[in-house]
Amino acid sequence: MRPRSIAVLGASPRPNTLGNNAVANLQRFGFAGSIFPVHPSAPEVAGLKAYANVASLPQVPDCAVVALSSDKVLQTLEDAAGQGVRAAVVFASGFAEADEAGKALQRDLQALCERTGLVICGPNCLGLVNVTEKTSLYSSSVPETLRPGGLAVVSHSGSGCIAISTLGRFGMSYMVSAGNAAIVDMAEYLEFLATDESTRVVTLFMEQMRDPARFEEAMSAMHRAGKPVIALKVGRSIKGAAASAAHTGSLAGSAEAYADFFRRNGVIAVEDLDEMAESIALMLAVRRLPKGDGLGIISVSGGETAMLCDVADRTGVKLPDPGQEAKARLKTALPGFGTASNPLDTTGNAVYDVSVYEACMEALACDPAISLVAVAQDCSPGLSKLGSGNYRRIAQTVANVAARLDKPVAFFNPTAGGLHPHVIEPFENTDVAVMQGTRASLIAIRRLFEYTQSLETRGPEGHAAPKADESWRKRLATGLPFTEREAKQFLAASGIPVTRETLARTEAEAVTAANAIGYPVVLKIESADIAHKTEVGGVRIGLNDADAVASAYREILASVKAKAPKAAIAGVVVQEMIVGGVEMIAGVTQCPPFGPAIVTGTGGVLVELVKDASLALAPIDHARAMELIRSTRAQRLLEGFRGAPAADANAFADLLVSLSSIAVAYGDLIEAIDLNPVAVLPAGRGVRVLDALVIPKNTSN
Amino acid sequence: MRPRSIAVLGASPRPNTLGNNAVANLQRFGFAGSIFPVHPSAPEVAGLKAYANVASLPQVPDCAVVALSSDKVLQTLEDAAGQGVRAAVVFASGFAEADEAGKALQRDLQALCERTGLVICGPNCLGLVNVTEKTSLYSSSVPETLRPGGLAVVSHSGSGCIAISTLGRFGMSYMVSAGNAAIVDMAEYLEFLATDESTRVVTLFMEQMRDPARFEEAMSAMHRAGKPVIALKVGRSIKGAAASAAHTGSLAGSAEAYADFFRRNGVIAVEDLDEMAESIALMLAVRRLPKGDGLGIISVSGGETAMLCDVADRTGVKLPDPGQEAKARLKTALPGFGTASNPLDTTGNAVYDVSVYEACMEALACDPAISLVAVAQDCSPGLSKLGSGNYRRIAQTVANVAARLDKPVAFFNPTAGGLHPHVIEPFENTDVAVMQGTRASLIAIRRLFEYTQSLETRGPEGHAAPKADESWRKRLATGLPFTEREAKQFLAASGIPVTRETLARTEAEAVTAANAIGYPVVLKIESADIAHKTEVGGVRIGLNDADAVASAYREILASVKAKAPKAAIAGVVVQEMIVGGVEMIAGVTQCPPFGPAIVTGTGGVLVELVKDASLALAPIDHARAMELIRSTRAQRLLEGFRGAPAADANAFADLLVSLSSIAVAYGDLIEAIDLNPVAVLPAGRGVRVLDALVIPKNTSN
Repeated sequence: MRPRSIAVLGASPRPNTLGNNAVANLQRFGFAGSIFPVHPSAPEVAGLKAYANVASLPQVPDCAVVALSSDKVLQTLEDAAGQGVRAAVVFASGFAEADEAGKALQRDLQALCERTGLVICGPNCLGLVNVTEKTSLYSSSVPETLRPGGLAVVSHSGSGCIAISTLGRFGMSYMVSAGNAAIVDMAEYLEFLATDESTRVVTLFMEQMRDPARFEEAMSAMHRAGKPVIALKVGRSIKGAAASAAHTGSLAGSAEAYADFFRRNGVIAVEDLDEMAESIALMLAVRRLPKGDGLGIISVSGGETAMLCDVADRTGVKLPDPGQEAKARLKTALPGFGTASNPLDTTGNAVYDVSVYEACMEALACDPAISLVAVAQDCSPGLSKLGSGNYRRIAQTVANVAARLDKPVAFFNPTAGGLHPHVIEPFENTDVAVMQGTRASLIAIRRLFEYTQSLETRGPEGHAAPKADESWRKRLATGLPFTEREAKQFLAASGIPVTRETLARTEAEAVTAANAIGYPVVLKIESADIAHKTEVGGVRIGLNDADAVASAYREILASVKAKAPKAAIAGVVVQEMIVGGVEMIAGVTQCPPFGPAIVTGTGGVLVELVKDASLALAPIDHARAMELIRSTRAQRLLEGFRGAPAADANAFADLLVSLSSIAVAYGDLIEAIDLNPVAVLPAGRGVRVLDALVIPKNTSN
Repeated sequence: MRPRSIAVLGASPRPNTLGNNAVANLQRFGFAGSIFPVHPSAPEVAGLKAYANVASLPQVPDCAVVALSSDKVLQTLEDAAGQGVRAAVVFASGFAEADEAGKALQRDLQALCERTGLVICGPNCLGLVNVTEKTSLYSSSVPETLRPGGLAVVSHSGSGCIAISTLGRFGMSYMVSAGNAAIVDMAEYLEFLATDESTRVVTLFMEQMRDPARFEEAMSAMHRAGKPVIALKVGRSIKGAAASAAHTGSLAGSAEAYADFFRRNGVIAVEDLDEMAESIALMLAVRRLPKGDGLGIISVSGGETAMLCDVADRTGVKLPDPGQEAKARLKTALPGFGTASNPLDTTGNAVYDVSVYEACMEALACDPAISLVAVAQDCSPGLSKLGSGNYRRIAQTVANVAARLDKPVAFFNPTAGGLHPHVIEPFENTDVAVMQGTRASLIAIRRLFEYTQSLETRGPEGHAAPKADESWRKRLATGLPFTEREAKQFLAASGIPVTRETLARTEAEAVTAANAIGYPVVLKIESADIAHKTEVGGVRIGLNDADAVASAYREILASVKAKAPKAAIAGVVVQEMIVGGVEMIAGVTQCPPFGPAIVTGTGGVLVELVKDASLALAPIDHARAMELIRSTRAQRLLEGFRGAPAADANAFADLLVSLSSIAVAYGDLIEAIDLNPVAVLPAGRGVRVLDALVIPKNTSN
């Protein structure tokens, strides 16, 4: 990351070749250390003395840049490592991204690195640029506009680097195109950047997360260093995720798992490059963190104010109405026909009388519900001279007021497409963020609020390591499907309340069991061979007395024997029938690479209709479980819908925590768990799992 | 709109005053006609001879610019109209936007115009600019970068004009800040612009629609002229819409009504200024309309391709997989490790070998499922010289290929924040649209597809004018609340199938009625004084025989007498009980200024949980009703959910059309209609309204 001497392996005297560009880039960008071009025969490359091989270099270089095609890479690195080289950048493509042969080549490369201790950026990358020290280990051209600053970009994709570095908006410390990241991946770069003095904000363009645990550690280092991380995870919509037997599997997918992982680790997750750019602008500028999540907006236009309201509504940004004091101060500050509201329209007069603007901004900022003041002001590059002068006066006023306030201030052009340099000049060397585009700017602000809150609540979610029962582990390891009854026994062993039930092998046993459980009861066929009991007439509900139980027993057996003659029947389960309660779904699903996650939402027959599911990676604690429940659409049902009593959300949260313990203790052996429905009874009366599916890994179920 | 002579009333010799700017703007922008400054005493303004009043002008000016404060406007206009002036621009604020006095002043202004035939732009506006003829009737400064072209902006808000005109991206014909639009509003401007030769696309920044019928006519004129209209309607999220007794009222609001109105009229509706800018860029450029809704995207980056997939997924843009022929051609065109997919990653090699790019683009374009080819290519202003040269080569290739294709082509920078002028130069004077920002660009493309489809399906939705029944009109006009029974009679009179029911005044009558209807039945208290029957014990369901009916009758009366002792009781309604079917909601709600709308969605107890509602302004025909049903979440239920039989969606569409007829025939007298639930029975068995609420206007209900 900070080499003082660099060998370019595959350096070429021919212009416009990779091997020539690599040398020229180092020279052009102004690298102050030693550059050693290596070429088998050329005496000189780009005006520098060339060497025939690494062995003949005057010193062991800190880093080797390998500008050779994939077939030559391994031998070259082997030689270099033999000469004591510890680090290299490999541009070549043709590795794991290409085909089977490439995958094998990448495995060989990894083995070589493991054996020799060599660390590598790449392969299949543009390389990396240390902007602070003007070190360009880069195959593409470094933008002439690139200036040193606090932003580091780490990207799996070369275009991620290009997109951000060519905006011309941000001073940068590092630009890393990690390519296949075969040896060094984002977590390792983060660990370094956490300690790098020039880096204040890191942004990631991520295609894949390979080692969540290491990433988590790296994020801890970033948090300790007080440096925010912004991440764009791409490739979340890929169709064709394997269909799952469990509902929970199809309800929530990889996108939600990444979202939860980022949330847990205080990563600012963005959804496209524009959101990324504005989050960068905001996080780079802001030094005072907001102390809440209320946004105050000032504008000189009524029409734009209305648009801001709409976009804030769509992007989930809170615009609190000004409180009593702020309102009083605003009324004094505003011209006669202005309205003391948020967003605040100072009216066009404020363009000419900046004292009005100043007073309005201070009044809005004094409101305790407002944590950040944003100024929405047209400042596109095509402004007239007169207009840019007027708006610069506003910008200067904003900068002056911001310096006095104890709350963060942001300035944004409601339209993306550039910023007029004359207008925004007053914000240079201030901590006022300058953004563009209403939607992207408001989203960046919302994410700043979320980031600040995540810092406050950050800390270990305390979980006692749950104990796995060895006999259940053995049972799961068989991979054989569970019957509903066995699934419930498994759940009950972990403290999850299930329906009371008894397996009856005769009509008489069924009646005895029903008498003991109490009416009404449900009867269900018990057979490991029958996945869909209803379809073979294997379920009867609402049985109110012994006679009903006896005849239901007979009818079930007759129907199952007719419709599934080959199924081995263990008997009929007599089950207590739960009436009432809110039907929820709860489950465990696997989210590689993160491991198992807990899913919940509206259950029963509504599950597919409402498509309501919230997901959290395991483990979760009670507080997180309650948060998860609150984020479902079913929350309204649980609160007591249409006069129904409030449901026992607390007990349901306990159930989710127990599921989380199961996920941790048995996650390696479980494909999915699906509890649907779970009856959440009125508050104080707990929950009951009515039906359950436990799918061990590697079953054909 | 095209004056040859202009008087500036309130012209001032003092620089930086409104009255001076108005004259200076005309001069600076290069107006070729006559300018007559009017000032009571000054001999000269901005180097032009000034006149003491309109009467002393050498000719009657085509237009008067009124640069005076609101208190002087009316008298001045009265005088000018007396001298034969027919048109004016009024900048002054202090009219309807300000306070009660301002509202009165605006009414006086309207009366004056009506009396004299004067037409006015404003008041409370920046005025208008005819860019083609360099006529600036404008109080603000016209951007120096503004060049003539095909875009007209009409905006209620001055900042709408400023935001679009200062982007420096679009050549313009007209820029109209309509302000309060007291006399001339958007519809009238559209009527003019439809005939204006230089205008090809109109964009509207709209705060309020006052006369939908006139707007509809204007849109017809625009469609006949083949000119697309883009509209941003702001102020859609305003909280505090009056709570409505009917569920349908709270389910869907003004935003949906505007959306449906725009959809009906082929207006391209956008949600913020960035979406507007990219829709403008696309609509101005495109000459060949797409013949479907499949988008093909080409990029040189795998990472960006993944992001494009994600954003397309979120924005509802279809990216069809390449068909057999396209796939075969792509495989030939691509380097070894490329994949023939859409979005297509041509790999970084295509940057250096444009023949690859060319072949890929042509191969993708040959696919019949692809209606438009978009090129996603970084081209931010901070690109390195080398990079911009490379990407310009791609751009040139795209321009060349586009000229040969019969499908429209668009080029966009995945990041907003500007476009590198050198890269995009090859697109000048081509019909390749150049956009920026992934999300805004993809949304613009989706809207182009929708626009094209709306042109194809455009045409009168044939509706026989429904006949209103005079006795029902009289009944509604009383404003008194309807009982459920009366509501159903009203619905039945319009051909809507309701439950069979009979009003019983005695226990014996109830039993007789039940015997006639057939069991099971429902009993409900009938009283105009009781809005919530269940709460007073006034409903009993599932009554299976005469005994049950008799005792239910007694129990209902006893309960109601105890809980609502003052209610006048007309009897008990005996109702057929419908079992099964999908429960939907259907209703009529008022959507000013458009009139009544039809709302439907998931009904029954789910209505508030699922928050599922689709809205269409009345009248609707059967096809539109089916479309509306398909756009609800309940569509899945209707199709036959979890093995249930498909429901009679056709019959339900008939019901919606009947509701639409009611809305047209009685809309002026109805506040809301709320049918919840409507049981949609299995296909062929029709629908039945189980419960109904009809709320006449001006009731206290």
